[in-house]
Parts: sequence; C-alpha cells; structure tokens
Amino acid sequence: MTKNELAKTLINDSVRNLKGYHLEPENCAVKLNQNENPRDWPPEVKEKAARFFVERPWNRYPNFIPDNLKKMLARYVDVDPCSVIVGNGSNEMLLVLFLSFAEKAKSVIICPPTFTVYRLLCDGLGMRAVSVGLDNDLQYDIGAIKKAVEENPGAMLVLSSPNNPVGNTMSEDDFKDILDIHTGVCVLDQAYAEFGGFDGTKLISAYPNLIVTRTFSKAMAAAGLRLGYMVGAADVIAEINKIKLPYNINFFTEHAATVILDNTKIMEESVGMIISERDELYEYLAALPFDNVYPSAANFILVRTPQKQKLFDHLRDDSILVRDVSSYPMLNDCLRIGVGTKDENAKLRESMNIFFERE
Amino acid sequence: MTKNELAKTLINDSVRNLKGYHLEPENCAVKLNQNENPRDWPPEVKEKAARFFVERPWNRYPNFIPDNLKKMLARYVDVDPCSVIVGNGSNEMLLVLFLSFAEKAKSVIICPPTFTVYRLLCDGLGMRAVSVGLDNDLQYDIGAIKKAVEENPGAMLVLSSPNNPVGNTMSEDDFKDILDIHTGVCVLDQAYAEFGGFDGTKLISAYPNLIVTRTFSKAMAAAGLRLGYMVGAADVIAEINKIKLPYNINFFTEHAATVILDNTKIMEESVGMIISERDELYEYLAALPFDNVYPSAANFILVRTPQKQKLFDHLRDDSILVRDVSSYPMLNDCLRIGVGTKDENAKLRESMNIFFERE
Repeated sequence: MTKNELAKTLINDSVRNLKGYHLEPENCAVKLNQNENPRDWPPEVKEKAARFFVERPWNRYPNFIPDNLKKMLARYVDVDPCSVIVGNGSNEMLLVLFLSFAEKAKSVIICPPTFTVYRLLCDGLGMRAVSVGLDNDLQYDIGAIKKAVEENPGAMLVLSSPNNPVGNTMSEDDFKDILDIHTGVCVLDQAYAEFGGFDGTKLISAYPNLIVTRTFSKAMAAAGLRLGYMVGAADVIAEINKIKLPYNINFFTEHAATVILDNTKIMEESVGMIISERDELYEYLAALPFDNVYPSAANFILVRTPQKQKLFDHLRDDSILVRDVSSYPMLNDCLRIGVGTKDENAKLRESMNIFFERE
Repeated sequence: MTKNELAKTLINDSVRNLKGYHLEPENCAVKLNQNENPRDWPPEVKEKAARFFVERPWNRYPNFIPDNLKKMLARYVDVDPCSVIVGNGSNEMLLVLFLSFAEKAKSVIICPPTFTVYRLLCDGLGMRAVSVGLDNDLQYDIGAIKKAVEENPGAMLVLSSPNNPVGNTMSEDDFKDILDIHTGVCVLDQAYAEFGGFDGTKLISAYPNLIVTRTFSKAMAAAGLRLGYMVGAADVIAEINKIKLPYNINFFTEHAATVILDNTKIMEESVGMIISERDELYEYLAALPFDNVYPSAANFILVRTPQKQKLFDHLRDDSILVRDVSSYPMLNDCLRIGVGTKDENAKLRESMNIFFERE
C-alpha cells in the first residue's frame, strides 16, 4: 500500500462508504431544480443590509449568542427565545441533532424517499437505519411507522412534512398518534412548512421529545445566506446547545436574517403567489400524459414518466432546469419540478406543450 | 420524572455531560480578549464586496463547490485545489475531522492547555481523551507525546502550533520526529501560523496522515465572516469531503474571502505590525513584576500573577478587555492579552503602569 492509501484507511469506514452528494452546475435561465423561492428580495431590503455590512468591522467575532435574531425568530414562530437554536442552514441543525441523540437512540427511523441528508448523517455516524418506505401512492404509511416505533423503542424518528422530493404531508392527527406511542426523539423537518401542512412548532409544549427544524432557504428566499433553525422544549434545547459549535453564524447572515424578519409581509406575498402557481401548475400537469403527478403541499411537484430523460433534455435545451430524482428509492422515472414565477411557469408550460405534442 | 426531564434523558450522555462553552459579552473600547486582528479591512475593500452582495440573488443557493475560493486559497498556501476544503470557521473543519477519524482512532491525544474545542469534540463524540500536558515551562513535552503516540497506535493526535492560549510552538524537526513514528492521523491547528512558527502545509506531501487547519479569524482580520479551511493530501481530502455537509458556506462569506485574498498585501502589513508590537509588548511585560510572561509566536501573550483578578478588573475599568484563562489546566492566575494596534497597546501599558505603581 502507498502512504496515501494507508492514510485513507485511517478514515472511519462509515465515512469512506458514503457515496458523496454532488450536484453538477448547469446554467439555465429558468432554474426549477433546487426548490428555491423564485423571487429575490427587493433591492431596498438588500441595500439596507449591505450598509451594515460595510459599517460593521469584519475583524471582530459575531456575538456569542445572536440574541436579536433569536428573539425575532421566536416571535415569528411564536415560542420563547430559549426554545430556538440557529445554525448554518437546517443541514447544521440536523447534524447537531444527530450528534445529540443518535448514539443513545442507536437506530434512526427514516421514511424514504425523503431528503438525502438524513441518510447521509445516519450512515456517516455509523447508526443503524430502519427504513419505512412511503406507500404506493407515495404517502406516509402510518401503520408501518407506528409498528417501527414500537419495535425500536427509543429510536430517533426523522420525518419531513411537507416531504422533499415528493411533496406529501402527514396529517397533524396521524403525527400526534405516532408521537403518543413514540418513546425516542422525533426530528420533524419542516423546511417547506410555509407552503402547506400543519405547524409542528405548536406541538412542542405537548411533546418535549419533538424538535422541529426550519430554514431560510425556501419560503424566506435566502438560500444563499445559509440560515436554519430548530425549535424544541427549552430544557432540551439547552442540552443540545452544548454540542453546537460556538460562532456558527457569521455576522452578516445574522444581520440579513433580521432584516428579512422585519419584512415578512414581502415573503408572505411571494408564498401566496407560489401556492397559487403551484395549484395551477398541478392542474396543468395532471392533464398531461404523465404516469403520475403527485399532489404537493410544498413549492415543487413530482411527476413520473418513462420519457423522463427525453423530457429533462428537452426542457434543458429550452434553458429550463428541473431535477432528475430518479435515483431515489421508489422514484424511478421521476422528475421534480420547482414552482417558478408566473412567467417562468408559463415558459415551462409552453416548452412542455411542444414536447407532448411532438411525442 | 416530568415529560421534559424524560425528554432530556434521550440525549447522549456524552453531550449532557459537557459543560457548555460560554463567553459573557463585555463592552470595552480596547478589545484584547479574542485574539482578533485589531485592524479592520479598509472601507474600499468592504464596499467592493458589498456591491456583490446587493447584486447577487439571495434566493439562490451558493455554488455546490466554491471553486474560485478554493483555487485562490490553494494559491495562497501553494497546494493543489483538490487538497483544500473550506468551512464555517476552523471549528467546522475540526468537527468534520473528528467525524471522519475519531471512531476508527478510538483515542484522541490532546496536549492541554490548548484550544477548548478539541476536548469539546472529543468528549461530545464520546471518544477517549489521552492528555499529554505541556511541561512546566508550558512547552510541548516532545518525549511524552512520542510515548503517547507509541502507546496508542492509530490514535488521533491533535496539535496546535502556535498554540492558543499559551503562544508556544513546536519546532518543525520535533514535529517531523513525532510524525515519523505516529501511525494515526495528525490534525495540526495552525490558526495563528501567519504570526510565527513553521508552515505545516509544506509537510503534507511527505505525511499524508497530516491535516492542517487554518482560519480567516486571526491574521486575515475576518472573524466576523466565519471562514476556515483544511489542507491535506488530495486522496484523503476527497474522502473527508463526503461527510462535510453540502452548502456549508454562504455566498457572501465565499465572495468576501476572495476579495480578501485579492488584497493579501494589506493583511501582510498588519501582520508585520502585530508581530513587531507583540515583541515590544513582550519586552515591556517581561520587565513588570509578573510571576511569568510566556514567549509567544502568536498575536497574544500569556501572563501569570496572583493579582490576576485585580489586574483584570483594573483594566476593564479602563475599558480594556483581556481574557481570564485561569480555568484552563495549568493556567491558574493567568491572563491572555491580545496584541492590539500601536495606540491600543500604548493604552494598555499606561493602564498597567498605574496598576503596578499602585500595588
């Protein structure tokens, strides 16, 4: 073995065995592949934030605790600031949660197809994954989840509602039924909560074993800033906070997020637009000869067609980028289409019309 | 047990047992407590970066790989871009390294007193810590480190040179002697490398089990931006990269860092100023009735005096903030004093003169 090969054997097998997540950059005018909010913040909001950026010294550390941001977030979700931790995207929040619970939990119950990072963390930390797949309609299989929870007492249950890349949700009643019998921690990822479904943060006082993660990357139109947060019972949050690394948020993201939270009306308008565009797009897609078009409570719609690759290429040739999610379990032949602006969705429909007329 | 108490028992004991790191905010005109570069970037540099901030859409994710930044960093340290990972402060880099190696290594060799985060990660991940304390002069005990390395084959060795909060370094020859017999991974934290000591990145081709971490928080005068990076053999870096979470750097920090790397001349000037101020400050402090003043290759100086608390309070009353590090092992009665600007150091000396005349 060479010295370099020998050095690689020092790395945990759980890490070496990971596939590694990758996304090839593609330049398309209409970008519907990352579930971003298609509307940027108006220049006056950005300029206000930029002024602070020039005034504030770069050479000084951020505040040890981003008090102001935590207070504003707490007001936004209507909880106490002690119930909130902020992080570098919800990705960091998920990592911190796995570091906090996974060893004690031993197993992680995951319901694929779902967000890739859960399985990455589970495998990367060498945890045992218990997979409870969605049913044939790509809905949560509540009975099977209950069974898994009973068979794996104390396991970490990771759910997502609305769920990426499908768009399905769990009902609040089903979720409560599961929590009533679940003895471990439950991480509920609500990255898309502003677009539909119940609000998990309302259930925290009743279920202190529930932690909800949220993000600024979707409805908040700030994927570039990398800000996520988690909400949980204050007692539990205080313990989790010990393993979160200090100074995890740069001063600028911290400040820009407070400017955003001062302007939630603008965000609510664009969320309203996205929801109505999504519902129109669903009606349109449902009328086309897809094998399946899945109902969605998020800002994207999943479709299935054996012509998946041809359709993907056709759209890309029209400078419209959607996401090929066919490598996810159960999602062979599937594309995930983000909801764009009215104009972008019109371009998408035009390009799709041409594709299906030709076929 | 209440429901909340029960929920807390779900958290890993390794996390619950952590003390939690905390720094109380203090408002002082002269801030010498966080080893920051006392000079901010000039307004024209900051304004250039701010323009991009207004132009660039907030709603879009950062690039999957920050290619441009990686290339510029690789040029700065004179390695191949494939040898570099960038992260949210060197803290994130350290976490990623612990996640990559600690399970296989089982033990972590740490040489206290040193940077707190190593022990936090070791304990938080439930690893066994092997402590090899500094010697009585607060220098690395090379013989003891070699012995620990031999007694713990495959262990993860974490060293820091220059070492915070002491300022001591390891010589390149001693470091190579250790690496020659070490069979595990070695993480060398060089957050303060620009201020003194050898450059560990030059040893990576000879020792592929060596990873060097660096930061923009010290010499680079950008603690507020949160940017760190690691440098290692390309093969090894490719594996480590799998457990680093995607989109860990916001677009703004990414861009600002490239603006900084376009202006390293400015940084080199302020580093030159800090080094000469540090050497002057050392001469000054060494002539005062301290029990010890420790030589430093970094941008701070460690002093020991039984009047530690009185001195700390006296300086704070003069709006000069230094760091009380007396709770670190071996550092009872110690204060760590950052090197400020010429003016700030003059104020410090003036205040110290009054203190010692009075005593």
